[in-house]
Amino acid sequence: MSGLVSIEVHQEPSYRVHVGVGALGAAAAFVGSRNAAIVTDARVRALHVGRLGLAAPVVEVPRGEDAKDFATLERVLDAFAHHGLDRSSVVVALGGGAIGDLAGLAASLYMRGIAFVQCPTTLLAQVDASVGGKTAVNLRAGKNLAGAFHPPSAVFADAGVLATLDPDDFLSGLGEVVKSALLDGEEFTAWLEGHAQALLRRDADAVAHVVERCVRLKARLVERDPREHGERKVLNLGHTFAHAIEQATGFGRVPHGVAVGVGVALALRAGENVVLAQRVERLLASLGLVPTLSELRRRIPSGLDGRSLVAAMRLDKKGASGRPRFVVLDAPGAVRWDVELSDERVQRTLA
Amino acid sequence: MSGLVSIEVHQEPSYRVHVGVGALGAAAAFVGSRNAAIVTDARVRALHVGRLGLAAPVVEVPRGEDAKDFATLERVLDAFAHHGLDRSSVVVALGGGAIGDLAGLAASLYMRGIAFVQCPTTLLAQVDASVGGKTAVNLRAGKNLAGAFHPPSAVFADAGVLATLDPDDFLSGLGEVVKSALLDGEEFTAWLEGHAQALLRRDADAVAHVVERCVRLKARLVERDPREHGERKVLNLGHTFAHAIEQATGFGRVPHGVAVGVGVALALRAGENVVLAQRVERLLASLGLVPTLSELRRRIPSGLDGRSLVAAMRLDKKGASGRPRFVVLDAPGAVRWDVELSDERVQRTLA
Repeated sequence: MSGLVSIEVHQEPSYRVHVGVGALGAAAAFVGSRNAAIVTDARVRALHVGRLGLAAPVVEVPRGEDAKDFATLERVLDAFAHHGLDRSSVVVALGGGAIGDLAGLAASLYMRGIAFVQCPTTLLAQVDASVGGKTAVNLRAGKNLAGAFHPPSAVFADAGVLATLDPDDFLSGLGEVVKSALLDGEEFTAWLEGHAQALLRRDADAVAHVVERCVRLKARLVERDPREHGERKVLNLGHTFAHAIEQATGFGRVPHGVAVGVGVALALRAGENVVLAQRVERLLASLGLVPTLSELRRRIPSGLDGRSLVAAMRLDKKGASGRPRFVVLDAPGAVRWDVELSDERVQRTLA
Repeated sequence: MSGLVSIEVHQEPSYRVHVGVGALGAAAAFVGSRNAAIVTDARVRALHVGRLGLAAPVVEVPRGEDAKDFATLERVLDAFAHHGLDRSSVVVALGGGAIGDLAGLAASLYMRGIAFVQCPTTLLAQVDASVGGKTAVNLRAGKNLAGAFHPPSAVFADAGVLATLDPDDFLSGLGEVVKSALLDGEEFTAWLEGHAQALLRRDADAVAHVVERCVRLKARLVERDPREHGERKVLNLGHTFAHAIEQATGFGRVPHGVAVGVGVALALRAGENVVLAQRVERLLASLGLVPTLSELRRRIPSGLDGRSLVAAMRLDKKGASGRPRFVVLDAPGAVRWDVELSDERVQRTLA
């Protein structure tokens, strides 16, 4: 196992992502003497809060997507005020992507913006959600519909915490890894195909390699397009389909990364790239993920009919004028975004 | 009465403030063919929504500060989704400062930020709140503690709507006008002293002059310091005291601009500028405002004791490390900010 790797993300302002076993131990030095509050859930608190070595009050929120509502957001902000946080204080988000999204938005809003650090404790959050500054809560009408761009001041992605991750949560992260590898190019995609077994047994070197490569990819994209006006949208590969799946089944039923995995395969099918779609479906299956919509329907019998999925897709926020836009892959590393697909082709893909 | 005056505010991105009778009529052309939603309250809707000439759904919120809570914020965002707003849509804030604060924050959060235009219908909002991009809702712990910097895409300050303003609301606006004149300098301050009667009878030319000058001052300050790291803080002259007064009496009891008027006089007294304090107290009285804390206590007998005010002040968000900071005026136009005053001097001022 290698030591910590630091990857600089050139957003405004710039920040570093520290990747490797023991990274959480570096967070306390970063916070220093500033007032802080730790936002986390009961389970992560019990497992990992000690690794921070930080004498700061803890604000507990529900686990997973349940944390991302307005009532919880207000409660977290009230807690910041109760604990005397001011403009020089730091919010520490310790948990999965949902906690990062919620705590980051709370930090963005509190006194119109205070600093926060991401301490992602899931593979999903380490490879994707903790970098880039997107924060959000959910509205009744859809996921992440209310949020802000608020880059973290630092990210501490500790591979040591992934050992305790639920098998389902680990799998979910692999869905985003597949997406990242396809965006990155042939070499990372082939590496993934060759290391599926190592990843499934959570080999520390393999996992650290994956986190580092995904963070480097995301950092490149976020730097070039911090506000997601263009190129950064490629990170949404598979997400138009994934969000429709999550929306149609009720958030939390299908883990986000699992939905993204199927979504990537569906995006390739919708783009009529059948050979690459089949290759990705094999990769998804070898990683224990759900490769196809028909397989997902076998596991979750209700809500996934074509009509429900199309209806859910119409609400997706990526459309510039009511029509959903898609990310399409011609080959690993060769990506187009803002592609409009005909209703007929989308409906055929979801049939 | 002169025609429309347009003042450019060089924020990122830049926008124009259109001042004068009939300004609301220009909003529809600005929105153009984009989807829009109008956020307003029932009273303003009945009086003024027709002036917009805009065929857009209306989202009604409670009047005044009651609109600035999380439940209303979520309801407004849900309504945006219900009406199919997307990233290219425009939110139209039609109302006083509270509606601008709420609707601006909702626009800032919806899909991580869509455009909004300010259509301020109170003197207070026209001279101050609608320019500069500060948006917020209140927390239990204090006013404007949760918010964002989200500049409007345009402001339409229609002097024609001020005729229907409640006398109390008009007075409240004059409190911020006094503050602006003192920040601007001797000439505007003396002009105000000479035109108190014209303003009190809402002479159209006098009111338009005041709105234009206040907007020009604010535009200058906001351009030089959009994020309020430094010089923009001078706009908080009187506000540390004013927020403590509002907090201690319960928001809405003392109108904001009235609290600001007393707050300016108190800030001058705390800065031991007795001659200027007395001059400002005379100006406040000539405009029908409350000039002193003792006069305010006569009108509102409970909550304004020195101890309650000092306690409320400790929660104010302007402090960098728990201590409130003050804006101090040496003469009209000669301002210092981030001044720490001794507890003893603050307590003496509030005794």
